[in-house]
Amino acid sequence: MDKIHVTLDQLYQLAHKTLLMMGIEPSLAKRGALTLNAADARGVDSHGVARLNFYDKCIARGEINPNPNIRIIKETPVSAFFDCDNGIGIATADLVMDKAISLAKHSGIGICSAINGHHIGVAGHYALKAAEQDLIGFACAPSRMMVAPTGGKEKMLGNSPNSLAFPAGLSTPPILMDMASTTVPAGKVEMAVRRGEQVPIGWILDKDGNDTTDPADFQNTDTGEVPGSLLPMAGAKGYCIIVMIELLSSILSGAKTGPHLATGGGGMGFFAAAVDPEIIRPIAELKKDLDDYYYMIKHSEKKQNVKEIYLPGEIEHNQTAKRRKQGVDLSAVVAGEVLKLHQKYGRLSAEAGIEDLFQ
Amino acid sequence: MDKIHVTLDQLYQLAHKTLLMMGIEPSLAKRGALTLNAADARGVDSHGVARLNFYDKCIARGEINPNPNIRIIKETPVSAFFDCDNGIGIATADLVMDKAISLAKHSGIGICSAINGHHIGVAGHYALKAAEQDLIGFACAPSRMMVAPTGGKEKMLGNSPNSLAFPAGLSTPPILMDMASTTVPAGKVEMAVRRGEQVPIGWILDKDGNDTTDPADFQNTDTGEVPGSLLPMAGAKGYCIIVMIELLSSILSGAKTGPHLATGGGGMGFFAAAVDPEIIRPIAELKKDLDDYYYMIKHSEKKQNVKEIYLPGEIEHNQTAKRRKQGVDLSAVVAGEVLKLHQKYGRLSAEAGIEDLFQ
Repeated sequence: MDKIHVTLDQLYQLAHKTLLMMGIEPSLAKRGALTLNAADARGVDSHGVARLNFYDKCIARGEINPNPNIRIIKETPVSAFFDCDNGIGIATADLVMDKAISLAKHSGIGICSAINGHHIGVAGHYALKAAEQDLIGFACAPSRMMVAPTGGKEKMLGNSPNSLAFPAGLSTPPILMDMASTTVPAGKVEMAVRRGEQVPIGWILDKDGNDTTDPADFQNTDTGEVPGSLLPMAGAKGYCIIVMIELLSSILSGAKTGPHLATGGGGMGFFAAAVDPEIIRPIAELKKDLDDYYYMIKHSEKKQNVKEIYLPGEIEHNQTAKRRKQGVDLSAVVAGEVLKLHQKYGRLSAEAGIEDLFQ
Repeated sequence: MDKIHVTLDQLYQLAHKTLLMMGIEPSLAKRGALTLNAADARGVDSHGVARLNFYDKCIARGEINPNPNIRIIKETPVSAFFDCDNGIGIATADLVMDKAISLAKHSGIGICSAINGHHIGVAGHYALKAAEQDLIGFACAPSRMMVAPTGGKEKMLGNSPNSLAFPAGLSTPPILMDMASTTVPAGKVEMAVRRGEQVPIGWILDKDGNDTTDPADFQNTDTGEVPGSLLPMAGAKGYCIIVMIELLSSILSGAKTGPHLATGGGGMGFFAAAVDPEIIRPIAELKKDLDDYYYMIKHSEKKQNVKEIYLPGEIEHNQTAKRRKQGVDLSAVVAGEVLKLHQKYGRLSAEAGIEDLFQ
């Protein structure tokens, strides 16, 4: 068996009970499980329950505080500045985003900045939360360092995940941008390392900052060490985007970046913003124009052999609808890792199988 | 003589008197000349006085209204929604940005959205205005259409110029991102057309939406027609960025996009935002952290044969300082075009030379 078929709700329940088992404070365990489930729903499998093992390691290392004292350091009618006290990022970022949404509902705009956060999971989850409440949403974070500045060879920067979402139209889904700012994620290069495949020029640099097609120049196949770096998307333009996202998410709040972050991302900043479009014009008018724009692009002429033109976020939106209806094939490798966690914590016996995770 | 050496102030005076000559309302002529001068100072020569001829054509076509009735349709303590009445974009966008700055000074945040605008010139000018007043600045606009959606072959999208700037540190200049979202600007492909040179894969598509290295597939060398399209930077990621910037700058306000814009960009939207970082934490603390971040990147290890690592906007910042001190070599071609304008308006005689522009 290389996979097990489960419902999205089963995956939520699994994430929830696993986070509780790890000692995550109950309200944060619920938020964190919802964030992971959003990734599993959208087809971003790398950022769903597949991450539970990573978070467990971060707790064990003392990077994540399971019972943080999250507090607002400073608040204005349009902003809040949070100290997340090293809580689990997938939950604290969700709480911070909710505050930006609540400020936007009261004041038209809300921005929130945070220190002492951690890895936030899939960035699109946060912007989409705002969009689902008819607000424009934006969220961004730094990441552990993996990128050298243009002209450099030393990893100093993260991949700057960021997301921006608009409300749904009258008959069209929310348009959502959700991306990291390197050409490819590290996982894609690691896969090439495992498979012994070459990668295109433009993905990675070797330890001296030179272009290479050999993924072993990025990551040592024996030791797992990473002497190379990931290239920003679009060359120097991507480098600029990465820097600006780090300024917004880390430097604005005084959070850590690059070499100052703990291994898994401990000490990260976070930035979230929400805008109520009603401060500009009635939402019904905007929704009508969003539909028109959507259909204008959707129905423009396709190149040969292309079946459909997609708007940003549309593929993930369709995937969510499909998975809600049909469920998800969870990889047995991922399920096996979660099973081991439950065995480690003594919640399941050594004889238990992955199906027992869903009892 | 292929160039004429002038001071930045002489270029400002030239832009100012030319805009006045074209009939632009005096307060807008001043703002517009300052926007053009910012481009000439930063080394973005394509967006300085070189554009005067383009704006003159837009006025002649009736796209630009020299004496617009600019009004605020809706205002809140954190926002303003402008109707720019088809005024010249390099001036109306400047006025809209100033309003965002003023709102941010009063309320901590200000966002402004505008309809019935026009080509805004260099986007970085607007974000930098905010940064020079110790605010975070953001500005973006659509552009005339030149890009097909990913999978498409029909031009539907612009290149989405956008800019984001942070205040200067204690001893470091403002960090500024200022870019359009295609791999290269149209001008760079047009130059290859004129020179009969091939271009790299990833710059352009032909009329059928296929990759090509022949710039004549983009622009017909005889007719000047443009059957091809520019590629977004970074593939589908750049396409997403382009769409999101169009949503912010055009769809939010109900402005025109793509096929609905007049030839030169008549009817464009504009979006400007400013945030006072003091709503998060004291500016002095932020400035200290901006310095640390700047120097951390600046002094990271360089790859071989690289003399210096630059932060976003640093090269243009240095260029500005240099040009303020040493002046600018203005291309005789550009000066000749402006001379023809002054002759057309009867301000200079048919015998006048380009040096007469600076009398």
